[in-house]
Amino acid sequence: MIKSPDAIAIIGLGNAGLPLAAVAADSGVKVIGVDLNEERCVRINQGINPIPEEKGLEELIMLHGGKSLLATPRFEDAKNCSTFIVIVPLFVDESYSPDFTVMERAVRSLGRILKKGDLVVLETTFPPGTTDTKIRAWLCESSGLEPSDFFLAYSPERIMTGYSISRLREFPKVLGGTDEESGFRAFQVYSKFISNLHLVSSAKVAEMIKVMEGCYRDVNIALANELYKICEEMGVDFFEARENANHQFCHIHLPSTGVGGHCIPVYPWFLIKEMERREEFSRCRLLRTSREVNDEMILYWAEKIILECMKLDKPLSMVKICIKGITFREGVKEFYHSRNLALARLLSEKGLDVYAADPLLSEDMVKSKGLRYIRPEEADLIFDPFELRLTVAGGDSTR
Amino acid sequence: MIKSPDAIAIIGLGNAGLPLAAVAADSGVKVIGVDLNEERCVRINQGINPIPEEKGLEELIMLHGGKSLLATPRFEDAKNCSTFIVIVPLFVDESYSPDFTVMERAVRSLGRILKKGDLVVLETTFPPGTTDTKIRAWLCESSGLEPSDFFLAYSPERIMTGYSISRLREFPKVLGGTDEESGFRAFQVYSKFISNLHLVSSAKVAEMIKVMEGCYRDVNIALANELYKICEEMGVDFFEARENANHQFCHIHLPSTGVGGHCIPVYPWFLIKEMERREEFSRCRLLRTSREVNDEMILYWAEKIILECMKLDKPLSMVKICIKGITFREGVKEFYHSRNLALARLLSEKGLDVYAADPLLSEDMVKSKGLRYIRPEEADLIFDPFELRLTVAGGDSTR
Repeated sequence: MIKSPDAIAIIGLGNAGLPLAAVAADSGVKVIGVDLNEERCVRINQGINPIPEEKGLEELIMLHGGKSLLATPRFEDAKNCSTFIVIVPLFVDESYSPDFTVMERAVRSLGRILKKGDLVVLETTFPPGTTDTKIRAWLCESSGLEPSDFFLAYSPERIMTGYSISRLREFPKVLGGTDEESGFRAFQVYSKFISNLHLVSSAKVAEMIKVMEGCYRDVNIALANELYKICEEMGVDFFEARENANHQFCHIHLPSTGVGGHCIPVYPWFLIKEMERREEFSRCRLLRTSREVNDEMILYWAEKIILECMKLDKPLSMVKICIKGITFREGVKEFYHSRNLALARLLSEKGLDVYAADPLLSEDMVKSKGLRYIRPEEADLIFDPFELRLTVAGGDSTR
Repeated sequence: MIKSPDAIAIIGLGNAGLPLAAVAADSGVKVIGVDLNEERCVRINQGINPIPEEKGLEELIMLHGGKSLLATPRFEDAKNCSTFIVIVPLFVDESYSPDFTVMERAVRSLGRILKKGDLVVLETTFPPGTTDTKIRAWLCESSGLEPSDFFLAYSPERIMTGYSISRLREFPKVLGGTDEESGFRAFQVYSKFISNLHLVSSAKVAEMIKVMEGCYRDVNIALANELYKICEEMGVDFFEARENANHQFCHIHLPSTGVGGHCIPVYPWFLIKEMERREEFSRCRLLRTSREVNDEMILYWAEKIILECMKLDKPLSMVKICIKGITFREGVKEFYHSRNLALARLLSEKGLDVYAADPLLSEDMVKSKGLRYIRPEEADLIFDPFELRLTVAGGDSTR
């Protein structure tokens, strides 16, 4: 256990927390990483990287794991630290409201070792205002400290699985305190391992910045999806049009089966829910419409797949359809709000003879998602959701 | 009159046509410009620039006007040309459907001098498909030629008043033929005066490209407006958040009183109307919502202005309000779909004591728009729609 008070504690060694911990350790900072997953901690301390798809992480874990980066499942091991960075997941429930269960547990556990004068920085993406209200209240309740006894700031993670190390090293990182002194102290700590750091006027502004970025992405993917559908209807090659439409002032995104994962499809709801709670329904119409357009893309693709089946000389119910990709995006073994999984299930519910396969998944993993497995070459029709490509067995593929 | 058959004719010497004609002339091409406005033609031939706000145009008109750029109100003067570029305005009617009256008249007049083997290129922004359907039909009817007797292509203007010359010289320009030979021939002609030229697979794709760019702008301005309203509601400085949210993958636009002018608020309707005609209402929901969000911004600003009036110790109906800017955007003396003009009228309809002023306009011009004039410093409350700034007389301004 590291006893030096200049060590920083990072609560949560998941896809976002571990790259941060590794980059901090690599910058010469002593890091105590707290994660309830004991096995994960053991492996990190052995120098074994638990996120193989994260470029550059392996070397850092090998170098620093168990040395300047010490992982532990016990909050008490971090009690001598004076800076705590919290980066644990926040989910949404079925009605798209944030579910703070995991976050509250982590923050209250942290509160029990929090001392007067300590600094706490949150990194998880939040509905704006969360750090200075919910988080502060939980910390006070569990620590017995007064609100002004500790420093509190917010700095949103901007990682993207696969590119997190380079993002931490090069990308602008935003930071805001709940008061001036908190922002200043957090800036000093983060300066030790983040080079492109931007202090903004408040934690709430920093929270909003991250949510706004997600909204930009979601709305622009919805726009790409809408323009794609219009181009298809009008007989225009969307991809050719997009390539020539884009320039320094125009950034039309790529169409898709929708938007999955823990981030982009979730963040707009933070603002939508807040506006609806305030009965300001008209202030979030575009965000809501974009969510609907993106989530409904599976209906569009389902229809397209069914129409493609007409090219085959078989009764529709006997056409073996393979959805070749069920993770939420290519190259990431995650399923949260996966529209590809939702598409396979939708076609199944319609009574079609649907199977699935995935370049990243074994037959058993496909089956564990409640789908039947097929080798793509045995299907009559293959839909590749990452390429948006429909292929008829032995025939041409169309995009 | 230029008799050489290698001269090109440009039909329409307006804000888009004249810079194109000037750049072509400056590249050594002989140009005959046809414009029904006889006085404008006389001035151009005298070397006088009729669009003073267009940077760099004055020198070109002075150099080439009346020499290699000859302006004429008569189509017959261009009858020896073999290339015709049409760049006249297209408006929308009150139900946002395109109004082809001016375009049809110009195209039919051109048809009367069209010869076998000639090339016609359209530059006006169109609903995709227009060049190969309506335009071709009008040309055939008025010329008596068969559809395959002439070459037909499309290359959208991408000018922006004030920056048209640099755009023509540096910005990528897209071109598509209604068939391969038409595209090829148009490419050869345009190569003489456009350096960054991109041939795409069809006129229809080229038409869609321009409309898609407008849709990107409209949707992203709607997003900026929606995020601005949410930030205001939640007590976050939108401008600070935007500045820090934007990076190479995030391009949040600026909020405004809405979107005016002949271009951005019009182009989305080309696609919306086409989808509605096909009863494909769900394919244009985002475009439609964006139009509504942008057009309704004047309601938001009207409410904000009224709430600001409460700071004054006067009955609401006696507060002199000045809308300091009624053109559709700053620095351009145009009113088409101006949301600032619409805002002044809306407040007036509500019975408020509203006046207007504009940095570009005389008192008489303000009055000609049906508004009362006031010198801003005589008003109790000033709203600057270009800065989104509300100023109470003798007080602070808020943004």
